[in-house]
Amino acid sequence: MAERQCDVIVIGAGTAGLHAYKTATARGADTIVVERGPGGSTCTRVGCMPSKLLIAAARAARHCAEAGRFGVEAAPVSVDAAALWARVRRERDRFDAAIRDEYHAIPDDHRIHGSARFAGPDSVMVGENRIVPRQGIIIATGARPLVPETLEPVRDLVHTHETIFELDHLPQAMAVLGAGPVGLELAQAFARLGVAVTLFDPGDTVAGLADPATNAAAIAALGHEVTLRLGVEAEATRATDGRALLSWEGGSITVDLILAATGRPPELTALDLKASGLELDDHGTPVFDPESRRCGDSAIFIAGDANAWRPVLHEAARGGRIAATVATGGDAPRPLPAFAITFTEPNLTEIGTAFADLPDDARIGCAKVADNGRATADGVAQGLVRLYADRDGVLLGASIAAPEGEHLGHLVALAVDQGMDAARFADQPWYHPTVEELLQMAARDIVGSEQVLV
Amino acid sequence: MAERQCDVIVIGAGTAGLHAYKTATARGADTIVVERGPGGSTCTRVGCMPSKLLIAAARAARHCAEAGRFGVEAAPVSVDAAALWARVRRERDRFDAAIRDEYHAIPDDHRIHGSARFAGPDSVMVGENRIVPRQGIIIATGARPLVPETLEPVRDLVHTHETIFELDHLPQAMAVLGAGPVGLELAQAFARLGVAVTLFDPGDTVAGLADPATNAAAIAALGHEVTLRLGVEAEATRATDGRALLSWEGGSITVDLILAATGRPPELTALDLKASGLELDDHGTPVFDPESRRCGDSAIFIAGDANAWRPVLHEAARGGRIAATVATGGDAPRPLPAFAITFTEPNLTEIGTAFADLPDDARIGCAKVADNGRATADGVAQGLVRLYADRDGVLLGASIAAPEGEHLGHLVALAVDQGMDAARFADQPWYHPTVEELLQMAARDIVGSEQVLV
Repeated sequence: MAERQCDVIVIGAGTAGLHAYKTATARGADTIVVERGPGGSTCTRVGCMPSKLLIAAARAARHCAEAGRFGVEAAPVSVDAAALWARVRRERDRFDAAIRDEYHAIPDDHRIHGSARFAGPDSVMVGENRIVPRQGIIIATGARPLVPETLEPVRDLVHTHETIFELDHLPQAMAVLGAGPVGLELAQAFARLGVAVTLFDPGDTVAGLADPATNAAAIAALGHEVTLRLGVEAEATRATDGRALLSWEGGSITVDLILAATGRPPELTALDLKASGLELDDHGTPVFDPESRRCGDSAIFIAGDANAWRPVLHEAARGGRIAATVATGGDAPRPLPAFAITFTEPNLTEIGTAFADLPDDARIGCAKVADNGRATADGVAQGLVRLYADRDGVLLGASIAAPEGEHLGHLVALAVDQGMDAARFADQPWYHPTVEELLQMAARDIVGSEQVLV
Repeated sequence: MAERQCDVIVIGAGTAGLHAYKTATARGADTIVVERGPGGSTCTRVGCMPSKLLIAAARAARHCAEAGRFGVEAAPVSVDAAALWARVRRERDRFDAAIRDEYHAIPDDHRIHGSARFAGPDSVMVGENRIVPRQGIIIATGARPLVPETLEPVRDLVHTHETIFELDHLPQAMAVLGAGPVGLELAQAFARLGVAVTLFDPGDTVAGLADPATNAAAIAALGHEVTLRLGVEAEATRATDGRALLSWEGGSITVDLILAATGRPPELTALDLKASGLELDDHGTPVFDPESRRCGDSAIFIAGDANAWRPVLHEAARGGRIAATVATGGDAPRPLPAFAITFTEPNLTEIGTAFADLPDDARIGCAKVADNGRATADGVAQGLVRLYADRDGVLLGASIAAPEGEHLGHLVALAVDQGMDAARFADQPWYHPTVEELLQMAARDIVGSEQVLV
């Protein structure tokens, strides 16, 4: 058994891990990355990027199908599934190669291929080799999709986001389990490509929207394209024709394919966390401080999807940087406003304080997308903007189901980070005609119109 | 001759005028609006709104034509011109009716139909009636498009933005004179609808872009769809077949229609400004203070397109509010960052300090759209983002030619208004994958990568 000393160990070379490695190294730490796979990130390989590529194709199909209302007549839309998947994978592979290149650019003596497990609170084993860091261990092992056991009877028809982008055809009928961002984005995309999509979720929210008004608006908008079965748990059995039969109280459908999008728990099992001595939560995830990503008062940090907190890329990247900074004696920066986007049309996004966590005397400003000139001109005037402020008018966050909502979300995030109040936010150069005017309308709704004359 | 006293006179019931009326009235002023037309605004009648409606149709045609690269087949695309124009005008009329309703909602005794002219520095005549305001006169008469005299030989084939939306067909070939926002937006829109469009401008910039790098990127991008003849002044004569022959050194084309988009001077001639005693600039426009919209130290104000300063709707509306506030004894608020958008694809936008006005030691951060994942996934990876900061990193503005640039522009405007520095701007929750990440890339380019580790 060999023993190696270093300053920082990073377990996992995905988004969080690569950022942690680069930051620790830039801060002068002798840093070792342990990666058991080929490198590459969830985002580029099976997440953000292939889904956005599929969504781009789906949007193209939708635009063609809807062009008639503008006086533009296209031929009946047909999808060349082979060409579609070829573009998705070709571009996906380019994105993924760039991330793998980053991994392979790490010098050989700072990179260990293998599976890491804790050998105690202060060291890690990779195979027979012990690595002992002087400053810290950063867990950045990511998350993996869960396939519910109830799908075992039809397991061969089940995909997750890790396999769905390897299809070479489009199913005729498809069930999506889970109304989170992954399930919703792919459900709408496949529907736009001509697949009959039914989405099941035992809960009554979509995209995890905490605001009931926005949630209702989102459901109304998405329901035009996807059959939404919320509050419904379907049982999967094998149909006589070999397809999957999904049955629930009151109905059943037969589908060619099931997308399981029911959750992505942290990938921690191989780490032997018991040996780390860390306190674990009910799901077996180390208890950690979201600001520093430090686990308890240990020298172990957890960043990225592995910590199940804000599983979005910018927090994974920043989390890796923060963990590396704090592990090497630096300070954690301010936390950013929470920000999540589901890239359906309309975009669904919540920023900052969630509806359920608003103070009792919070002020909520509303703007209906139907009242926005630009959205009307573009033929996408459906949705709702809800902007939150405290009793003094200081912006706290927003819940948005709107066309171009991803862009509105960035503006709210910036304003919340700046501690802006609604009056100042209302008095910005909101250009006409843009969907951004919805934010002005919502801010004025908070301030009261008589106070926004100038 | 009757004489009527009031507190404030507003001349013109367009965007600036209506906002001035409402603000002055809300501040307790006895306010009279003089309007010689039927009411309604340039924006809704012949500007922002019909152009966005036409652009929406043109975008639909473009999307259909380009869907093949995503594996979606919808060719061939044809345009039903009657249906296209019907939608443009139907929706335009709805927008316009809303503004006219605002005008007609003004009580009869606060609204005079007629043409106003100055009878001295302190009063206005409408027909034989003199109106004498106690507090101020607000000029909000807007602007009108200019048809160059050189087009007289083919005047019957010439349109401006005031008449082009009344077409019931699409020309085969069309010339656009003027590479400003109006000319560019309509040139690209008609091109996407199948018209062969040639755009002429004696200058070498498009959309008034002050930044030469962004201007070059914009020209490269727009040139795929529109034949751009910059630095070229064409002479118009009648072709033998009755169409218009446009000739220049080195070439000529024959077109069915000419769009004159060479400028929109303020509409001031009927006002008899000599009688006002105001100092006029070389163009005959009153000299005024952009913060207060006050002309010299008079009680006369000028707001909206009539003052030829930032002829965009949000400044017209705010200008009307400011003029009314200051006229009635209030204070002018802070000026907003300059902000102009041309709604081509890519969007062209400049915010804040113009390139030519940057301090010598300004820092400029660049980001190429080709390096942005989302733009690549969406197949629109062309353009450039240039972000400006002073020597200390405080953001001054930006010049952007990028897909979704209108949204990026709002973020820069908010950041500039907040006095943010590039480091803080870089450390925002920039969601992945979005075009907003271009702003992060540009901000990091200013800050230097080693300073953005956290």
